[in-house]
Amino acid sequence: MELVLGIDIGGTKTKIGLVDKSGKCHIKAVFRTREFPNLEDYLDKVKGVSNELIQSIDEKTTILGCGIGAPNASSKNGTIENASNLVWKGSVPILEKLRERMDMPMRIMNDASAAALGEMLFGGAQNLTDFIVITLGTGFGAGIVANGRLIDGYDGFAGELGHVDMTIGDGRLTGLGIRGGLEAYVSATGLKRTIMYMLSKYLVDSRFRNIAYNDLHGEDITKAAEEGDIIALKAFDYTAKIMAQALANFTAFTQPEAFILMGGLTNSGKWIKEPLESYFNEFLLDVYKGKVKLLESGMHGKTAAICGAAALIWEIQETQSKPKMDRI
Amino acid sequence: MELVLGIDIGGTKTKIGLVDKSGKCHIKAVFRTREFPNLEDYLDKVKGVSNELIQSIDEKTTILGCGIGAPNASSKNGTIENASNLVWKGSVPILEKLRERMDMPMRIMNDASAAALGEMLFGGAQNLTDFIVITLGTGFGAGIVANGRLIDGYDGFAGELGHVDMTIGDGRLTGLGIRGGLEAYVSATGLKRTIMYMLSKYLVDSRFRNIAYNDLHGEDITKAAEEGDIIALKAFDYTAKIMAQALANFTAFTQPEAFILMGGLTNSGKWIKEPLESYFNEFLLDVYKGKVKLLESGMHGKTAAICGAAALIWEIQETQSKPKMDRI
Repeated sequence: MELVLGIDIGGTKTKIGLVDKSGKCHIKAVFRTREFPNLEDYLDKVKGVSNELIQSIDEKTTILGCGIGAPNASSKNGTIENASNLVWKGSVPILEKLRERMDMPMRIMNDASAAALGEMLFGGAQNLTDFIVITLGTGFGAGIVANGRLIDGYDGFAGELGHVDMTIGDGRLTGLGIRGGLEAYVSATGLKRTIMYMLSKYLVDSRFRNIAYNDLHGEDITKAAEEGDIIALKAFDYTAKIMAQALANFTAFTQPEAFILMGGLTNSGKWIKEPLESYFNEFLLDVYKGKVKLLESGMHGKTAAICGAAALIWEIQETQSKPKMDRI
Repeated sequence: MELVLGIDIGGTKTKIGLVDKSGKCHIKAVFRTREFPNLEDYLDKVKGVSNELIQSIDEKTTILGCGIGAPNASSKNGTIENASNLVWKGSVPILEKLRERMDMPMRIMNDASAAALGEMLFGGAQNLTDFIVITLGTGFGAGIVANGRLIDGYDGFAGELGHVDMTIGDGRLTGLGIRGGLEAYVSATGLKRTIMYMLSKYLVDSRFRNIAYNDLHGEDITKAAEEGDIIALKAFDYTAKIMAQALANFTAFTQPEAFILMGGLTNSGKWIKEPLESYFNEFLLDVYKGKVKLLESGMHGKTAAICGAAALIWEIQETQSKPKMDRI
């Protein structure tokens, strides 16, 4: 059997797994990224966990390579740069440093772009040539596919849509100091901030008047909405409205056939999805109305990020093993 | 000699010309689009003018085909749909109707996308794989190239960035009724509207207190700026600031190496360009700073739109005549 090592470097957790050609993750491990503020220690940990996984599987297995998804990663430079949700600051030459520790073909990419490749290879985008994956975790990420190809940009930083200014110079600051930036509103963190905003705006009673910001979790907000908490309902509506405006704007850019939504915020289910669908169709230009789908990820939630990372290597395998494809 | 017929359908003027392989326009004709509110009459006029041009040149010339650039055109459907700056409303099957009149290979595209192809073949983008052409005429258009290929979108309507909402639900209406839409601010029309806004906001004396909106032309505003008119200077600064924010947002999408600016508004020269450069570098995310150029069109101003349209056919010729290119 042939497997690929997939590594998802997240602001909170790092997930590592071994993924086969069909996108199935055979084994995985998770540890907390923030426990390793020193980059060298972190990479030693990655190496250790990877080796454990590889040694735990059948001897006859070949490891084809290692794909890495990370926020603010440049596929062209092999670096992570100024990631607001990671502890290592500045420009981090992560590919070079990991290559010193692990001898195999290696490739890194923005986590949302990796997820888009994963959806093309294993998930809900196997027949799509124009789509955008939106990841709604600690931040807001986007992986854009047009003409059947992932858009990298001039030096690998395409898709940083979490920092698009939605308000012309007035609004919340993102972790990168962008005022009015999208991810300050539409992300797990943005939803928490909106709860605070709604508590400031209204005087209605709510369970959130007894919970501190730092004790607030996404699941609480979903639960409160189910119980009819007005503040929670208003927060979801507000988040969905801004997200719908953003997706309508993005549609005017590459006119995707679908947006594929994944990440923590999508676990809120209908509380985000129903108002989102409604506002989105309202905001879309007439020429786009009825043509753009909002889909859920076609990959398994818990391992989607690992599979996306592994797709970086499986994509190359597929390209090499087939005759010239019309996708390219 | 081989030539291509290039037709640029603009809100005000229609320009038709014959363009050679190097992008040189050998002969051209112009007439006013709005004099033909009936589509059939208009297409008869297009046919008549085209035939005159073709008959006026050397008999040994071969006409390879006809490329058409038009606002809100879908390359995939061959239609113009809901164009706010054209008199024909609804969905216009223009390619089909023109084919009934002229028997040659024919291709239509959004005018800004056609301009982008023109820049790739004949202009300032011959060595660029990731760039965006911005056309600043009556409206605001965008032609997006990523991975060396034009982005069409799911059914040919990518790049309608003039209707991106910059203000979350509050602001001017565009011709398509989009509140806060970019082209309501950044276009020749947008600049005129901003003059009115500045007259409302300030009480300072200005030549524009004696000119009615309908009598106002772009050149007047440039001239007034040169004479130090405060209202004109404030209007340029305001326009440049919103445009810079938009271009910074667009950069986060496909990370182009350059924006190529063309169209009437760029004739205002330094009055728009200097504040634009300054605000743009201020608004760009750190990972993009210093990497994105603002360029002027590399095609000759008066014939650029015709050459862009002709590029639709020359592009196919080039693709067919060469062995498989790595650009594709």
